[in-house]
Amino acid sequence: MTVQASGPVPSRRLVDGVLAGDRRALARLISRAEAGEEECRPALADIHRHTGRAHIVGVTGVPGSGKSTLVRACASAMRAVGRTLGVVAVDPSSPFSGGAILGDRIRMGALAGDPGVFIRSMASRGALGGLAHAALDAVDLMDAAGFDTVLIETVGVGQDEVDIVRAADTTVVVSAPGLGDDIQAIKAGVLEIADIHVVSKSDRPDANRTFAELKQMLLLAQVPPERHIPVVATSAESGEGIDALLAEIDSHSSFLASDGRLARRRRRNAAARAVKIAEEMVRRRYAAGDSTAMAAIVDRMCARELDPHGAARALLATLDEVAP
Amino acid sequence: MTVQASGPVPSRRLVDGVLAGDRRALARLISRAEAGEEECRPALADIHRHTGRAHIVGVTGVPGSGKSTLVRACASAMRAVGRTLGVVAVDPSSPFSGGAILGDRIRMGALAGDPGVFIRSMASRGALGGLAHAALDAVDLMDAAGFDTVLIETVGVGQDEVDIVRAADTTVVVSAPGLGDDIQAIKAGVLEIADIHVVSKSDRPDANRTFAELKQMLLLAQVPPERHIPVVATSAESGEGIDALLAEIDSHSSFLASDGRLARRRRRNAAARAVKIAEEMVRRRYAAGDSTAMAAIVDRMCARELDPHGAARALLATLDEVAP
Repeated sequence: MTVQASGPVPSRRLVDGVLAGDRRALARLISRAEAGEEECRPALADIHRHTGRAHIVGVTGVPGSGKSTLVRACASAMRAVGRTLGVVAVDPSSPFSGGAILGDRIRMGALAGDPGVFIRSMASRGALGGLAHAALDAVDLMDAAGFDTVLIETVGVGQDEVDIVRAADTTVVVSAPGLGDDIQAIKAGVLEIADIHVVSKSDRPDANRTFAELKQMLLLAQVPPERHIPVVATSAESGEGIDALLAEIDSHSSFLASDGRLARRRRRNAAARAVKIAEEMVRRRYAAGDSTAMAAIVDRMCARELDPHGAARALLATLDEVAP
Repeated sequence: MTVQASGPVPSRRLVDGVLAGDRRALARLISRAEAGEEECRPALADIHRHTGRAHIVGVTGVPGSGKSTLVRACASAMRAVGRTLGVVAVDPSSPFSGGAILGDRIRMGALAGDPGVFIRSMASRGALGGLAHAALDAVDLMDAAGFDTVLIETVGVGQDEVDIVRAADTTVVVSAPGLGDDIQAIKAGVLEIADIHVVSKSDRPDANRTFAELKQMLLLAQVPPERHIPVVATSAESGEGIDALLAEIDSHSSFLASDGRLARRRRRNAAARAVKIAEEMVRRRYAAGDSTAMAAIVDRMCARELDPHGAARALLATLDEVAP
């Protein structure tokens, strides 16, 4: 028995805990990553060295598409065949609601108390795009903690969310029947990133139409995909299609395993992630505020001596000056 | 009568056209800006020198909130009192639909053929965030063309859209009664940027609840606003509340006119715009592809020799090398 020292647990010890599969350590390091604490950076760098083993599956769809229910059904089905899994649910919840923690409890459902599952919701953060980075840190942490599969669930509406789901090995896009065109339109940009399409709520009478529309869209795709993109009809209520979806996820995983595809996809994802962080670093330097150089440039733009592009070029030239 | 030379009209002549209020010149320069043609940059820089006169009003809300109908009603009401206006409608339409041009025709309605109105839809572009820049170029062009008011209509879901609406002098956030919580949640981030709230479809029985919820939310705001934020109930069908909304827009305009507030807001907006373009320039340099330096960094990240933040720092250090 050891006496706990007072004060926060050092990140180094949390890293050891995560690598040993300790859930509390995992929860704490995710919280530190989400809070954007700079001090946990070295720990996350350590963690990153132990990643790459889990199969990362992204699940996205518009609000109301039944993603969360589907993810819970998939999680149960994966557990039934003995696979362990982590879930990162990116939740665009209101700053007024603080809904993420409550959401976790609801999401857990029958999975609560199962040591083979770890579910974590992350709430939308401010304009600085920290959410995508924190979500991918959480994926790294679950990967390093030894879960076989990590599911990322995100609403497919903003660029941030698309960036998150693009970090997956396998991307599942969920469409629900009967959502208005106005709403379906939002996800136009994400339809094309699907490795697997799902039509959820397949017990609804209009599900066939959505299924047919997706098939039609895939036929009309301007760039033929490297691989046939399946469309799976699921009903989280009846359980229909969940096993078929898992089989398609496995099939995509096998596809990636051949001809170095997984390495290529992960290389592309790694590049995108590093570039996003670099952009974020640029943004933070500017957000750090009105350095003298920056103020002078903005003044000249307001006086119409510089146009927006000229001002942007001038800002880039002073990038090293605007903040340390 | 002059004989038209073959080939595209030089941008310089289009600038003169825009400044003289020529609609065809305006339409063409907006198209060139939307296409992201680098050659039209000097023309847009010229245009920028002639901006700052119009009152820029941003109107945002989730899909289904009735923004477009409201904007059309406002446009008609402004025309009825003799004001001229430009409308930039940012439309997250599918790349499969090409819906923007059709949308313009529908939006015009009774306003079609009125020389005091110019409406332009812009479709969502790729991941490079060019839409926000093109939309603000279009606002500049309409401002320089002499319209009294420029309305920017955008769906308030993505960061890009929020950035666009943040470029306004006055921001109107539209909420419709009866949209599911899941959908309302998306706009949590934009609720706080409202200078004026609108509850649309006020003839619906559940409108009172939405009205009360917004009032309540404003009461509970953590940071008290500099000014009372009004909530206006409108019905585009019956015309109820449209005049009240215009009065609130004018009232906000007068508020801005005092104590240098307009200049401060525009300065903030100018800074945000220049920073966004600078970030975009950074993104493009990386997107330009696998320079040798960049490829080496990504390889090291894939080999787990660099963690994502280390890779990002390394990328920033080579920013000047990755592309000209």
